[in-house]
Amino acid sequence: MSQTPEKPDESNPQAHVPKAIVSRLSLYLRELQHLVRDGAETTSSTQLGKLLGFTDAQVRKDLAHFGQFGYPGIGYRCAELIEAIRKILNTNRSWRVGLVGVGNLGRALLGYRGFSQQGFEVVAAFDLRRELVGTRIEGIEVFHLDDLPRIAQQRDIRLGIIAVPAEAAQSVADRFVEAGVEGVLNFAPVTLSLPGSVRTVGVDLAIELEQLAFAVANLGKSR
Amino acid sequence: MSQTPEKPDESNPQAHVPKAIVSRLSLYLRELQHLVRDGAETTSSTQLGKLLGFTDAQVRKDLAHFGQFGYPGIGYRCAELIEAIRKILNTNRSWRVGLVGVGNLGRALLGYRGFSQQGFEVVAAFDLRRELVGTRIEGIEVFHLDDLPRIAQQRDIRLGIIAVPAEAAQSVADRFVEAGVEGVLNFAPVTLSLPGSVRTVGVDLAIELEQLAFAVANLGKSR
Repeated sequence: MSQTPEKPDESNPQAHVPKAIVSRLSLYLRELQHLVRDGAETTSSTQLGKLLGFTDAQVRKDLAHFGQFGYPGIGYRCAELIEAIRKILNTNRSWRVGLVGVGNLGRALLGYRGFSQQGFEVVAAFDLRRELVGTRIEGIEVFHLDDLPRIAQQRDIRLGIIAVPAEAAQSVADRFVEAGVEGVLNFAPVTLSLPGSVRTVGVDLAIELEQLAFAVANLGKSR
Repeated sequence: MSQTPEKPDESNPQAHVPKAIVSRLSLYLRELQHLVRDGAETTSSTQLGKLLGFTDAQVRKDLAHFGQFGYPGIGYRCAELIEAIRKILNTNRSWRVGLVGVGNLGRALLGYRGFSQQGFEVVAAFDLRRELVGTRIEGIEVFHLDDLPRIAQQRDIRLGIIAVPAEAAQSVADRFVEAGVEGVLNFAPVTLSLPGSVRTVGVDLAIELEQLAFAVANLGKSR
């Protein structure tokens, strides 16, 4: 999924953590949040693993990268482990997000409750279409794209979401960079060229289907 | 991202390939397709790596899991490597897909050209809202959810996409299973419980933002 270059960084041990482990932290976090919602106070590597289809050893090994979280005879305290993972992911604080492209996908993303649940607050949307400017979609104000630098500064926008067609994605990315955004989530099926100071994660929805096709075909062969 | 259990399978070497490598195959495939579109006939592990932010050694190692694809003094022949990767991913043939949930997200997915470009053909959409049934969205016919088993059989639907709210996702998944679908791509932010014969990949859009937050925060520390 991710197109972020992995550069070694001697000063920060977390920068060495393989991306696959960071991805799994998000999965553990989500399961822990579901467990808490369902009333659980503690869990175990076995339970977490079972919920996600990993071995308990995998869960323990992943978490051991970041510290010692389990208690003998108890397992993990859900609330404590949630807090620890959010601290590692840096989502224990709120991130302000701007979104460009208010088509079907943009609208779906503006209405996606999962973002705010995890600490991401979309504080402004942008589009080129004059008829959309000044309206509110899912409660979020729509501005003209030319206002991005001003609004980004006023509202402390640090992450950007690109929900425009492929051919417009790079120019929107450049606008985000000019506006001082630190990270870009890109839904357009193109690889962006960005300065090293800006991180990007690409969401190519066809990749998810390809991964599913691989899983289905290889399950088939094993029967 | 993926919630698919990884079970070892002695009869099929591809079942042993780590999921992270399978994900990167999709990234290589996409870059190769861009290179061909731009007129390139050959490429190298260095070029592919550079485009994606991986080392050339990583690229060679990943591809070596599946065979010998490079030519001395030439590198990779793009068209040939595309064909090989599509064969590994099982996207060298067309997959017929059904989608449930024609809200903003569902509409965005029905209009997403990236699916058909990669061999995924959405052949029917389903919803519970009577006023949508019988309409066409992005050229795709909308049926009542009750018609899923019949249409899935008639149109040979093998993969399902879930684009409904979280609380409805499990019951839609059950319907897909009853209809004989082999794999489910789930956009609802819940973990589905499915029989072992059906694969699932979960797309939790907040996870992408979490991964971006981690990357941004850890880039910041290294400056």
